[in-house]
Amino acid sequence: MRSKSMTETPVNDAIDWQERGLHYGDGLFETLLKLGGRIPFWKDHYQRLSEGCHRLHITVPTAEWLNDKIIQQTQGVDTAVVKLIVTRGKGGRGLKMPERNRPSIFVFKYPYTALKDQQRAIDVAICETRLAINPNLAGIKHLNRLDYVLAALELEAKGQKDEGILCDTDGFLVEGIISNLFFCLQGQVYTPSLDLVGVNGIMRKHVLQYFESEGIKVKIGRFPAQLLMQASEIFMCNSVQGVRPIKSLDQLPLSVGPITRSLMKIANNRFESSANV
Amino acid sequence: MRSKSMTETPVNDAIDWQERGLHYGDGLFETLLKLGGRIPFWKDHYQRLSEGCHRLHITVPTAEWLNDKIIQQTQGVDTAVVKLIVTRGKGGRGLKMPERNRPSIFVFKYPYTALKDQQRAIDVAICETRLAINPNLAGIKHLNRLDYVLAALELEAKGQKDEGILCDTDGFLVEGIISNLFFCLQGQVYTPSLDLVGVNGIMRKHVLQYFESEGIKVKIGRFPAQLLMQASEIFMCNSVQGVRPIKSLDQLPLSVGPITRSLMKIANNRFESSANV
Repeated sequence: MRSKSMTETPVNDAIDWQERGLHYGDGLFETLLKLGGRIPFWKDHYQRLSEGCHRLHITVPTAEWLNDKIIQQTQGVDTAVVKLIVTRGKGGRGLKMPERNRPSIFVFKYPYTALKDQQRAIDVAICETRLAINPNLAGIKHLNRLDYVLAALELEAKGQKDEGILCDTDGFLVEGIISNLFFCLQGQVYTPSLDLVGVNGIMRKHVLQYFESEGIKVKIGRFPAQLLMQASEIFMCNSVQGVRPIKSLDQLPLSVGPITRSLMKIANNRFESSANV
Repeated sequence: MRSKSMTETPVNDAIDWQERGLHYGDGLFETLLKLGGRIPFWKDHYQRLSEGCHRLHITVPTAEWLNDKIIQQTQGVDTAVVKLIVTRGKGGRGLKMPERNRPSIFVFKYPYTALKDQQRAIDVAICETRLAINPNLAGIKHLNRLDYVLAALELEAKGQKDEGILCDTDGFLVEGIISNLFFCLQGQVYTPSLDLVGVNGIMRKHVLQYFESEGIKVKIGRFPAQLLMQASEIFMCNSVQGVRPIKSLDQLPLSVGPITRSLMKIANNRFESSANV
């Protein structure tokens, strides 16, 4: 977006009744941390947001402008979880596109729980709810989250497991409800590909970079859920909670293995020290 | 929803920043007409909304309560297009379900163009944008409309056709961006099934009932787009615009055939005379 109109873009204005984010889920989001005035992984968040805006043909604000707005909107708060929503803005009835390309920007803040307090091993269940295969939307963090809402409802009904693992409508593993998935089996590390559906996680990217730097090959592909049942280690990750080890899969106990342990240390280190921009 | 809590449910309150309709598209909508104080097809709209609420585990308000609210919110307006949105309400971060089941209800009104003025024959294009196959959400009118937004963008780029025809990710015909699809080929009437994806349209239901009452068999199934290219008649329909004949498909001219003509008369008749509740 040209800087002139960008300065006019409201942040956290009242939510207009014509907001396309409400009517169609016509937008994107990022969940970030603010840690002592810095936004860890800001470059990565902005890159994914830009990619999403590009795919949805939404005008993307500049990284600097957005960063400033987030810092402004969270003034007085040292550490917070911040949700940034960018939508196509206001629009008419019947999907008609707005005449002016003027995205809405919302910045919401939530309390942050320190990483060390949330990195306990978690219980996970494989959900029956399937993710719809949708290459047009795969990878980006869009606002059409009903599949994940249904999975969260299923998980709640199952008795409050910490996280659910989701397969696509063909039955292949994709990710968790709020995190990406890795597993180890006979010395090999696996993670599902996200070309058809799923969120291209920032912590996943950093974990892959770490494995690459260590010369550890990761198989990325479409794997059936049965393969996961044989895994020696499973961990999940996202950029707010870091790397989370799994202590049970569908009530089957799992121990936290050496790969997961070393990754947790490294990921958390990077986390706390990652530069702002 | 029990009537006690229903009376507390706000209608057209300011849109809260925690609104799950914005964060996740976690809700449903209906687009209705208000014609001289009546809501044509209200029973059908309410039935589909209830079905959607049931599938998404959202508490559904009673038909009477909702009908009253719509009439109240559109007071002083004799004819209007009304958009009703029902969401799961406010919620916390990370998909956590709200502790109290208290849906948000929004009623928005738009100007109405008389049926006779909008029932000209239309130009349609087959879109390259595909609809994701998603049996969990098939049939209901949910707020996750990004596939349709992308199709509308594609249509706009193609040069403002009136409507786009959409196939699913397997390549089978589903519906239009804002209407359902019927076509005739060698004396046989066809319409795509909506078991895997698509909106269970109210006018489609009435058209099917009409064909049944006339002893005309309609083939409902998964049909490739090529079949449509050979059709002698194509028409599309929805409950706001009635039955709309097609005058060109991907620039190939089509004449408005006898089945479409007779249907238009009948549909419009039912339209204007359908009872409120």
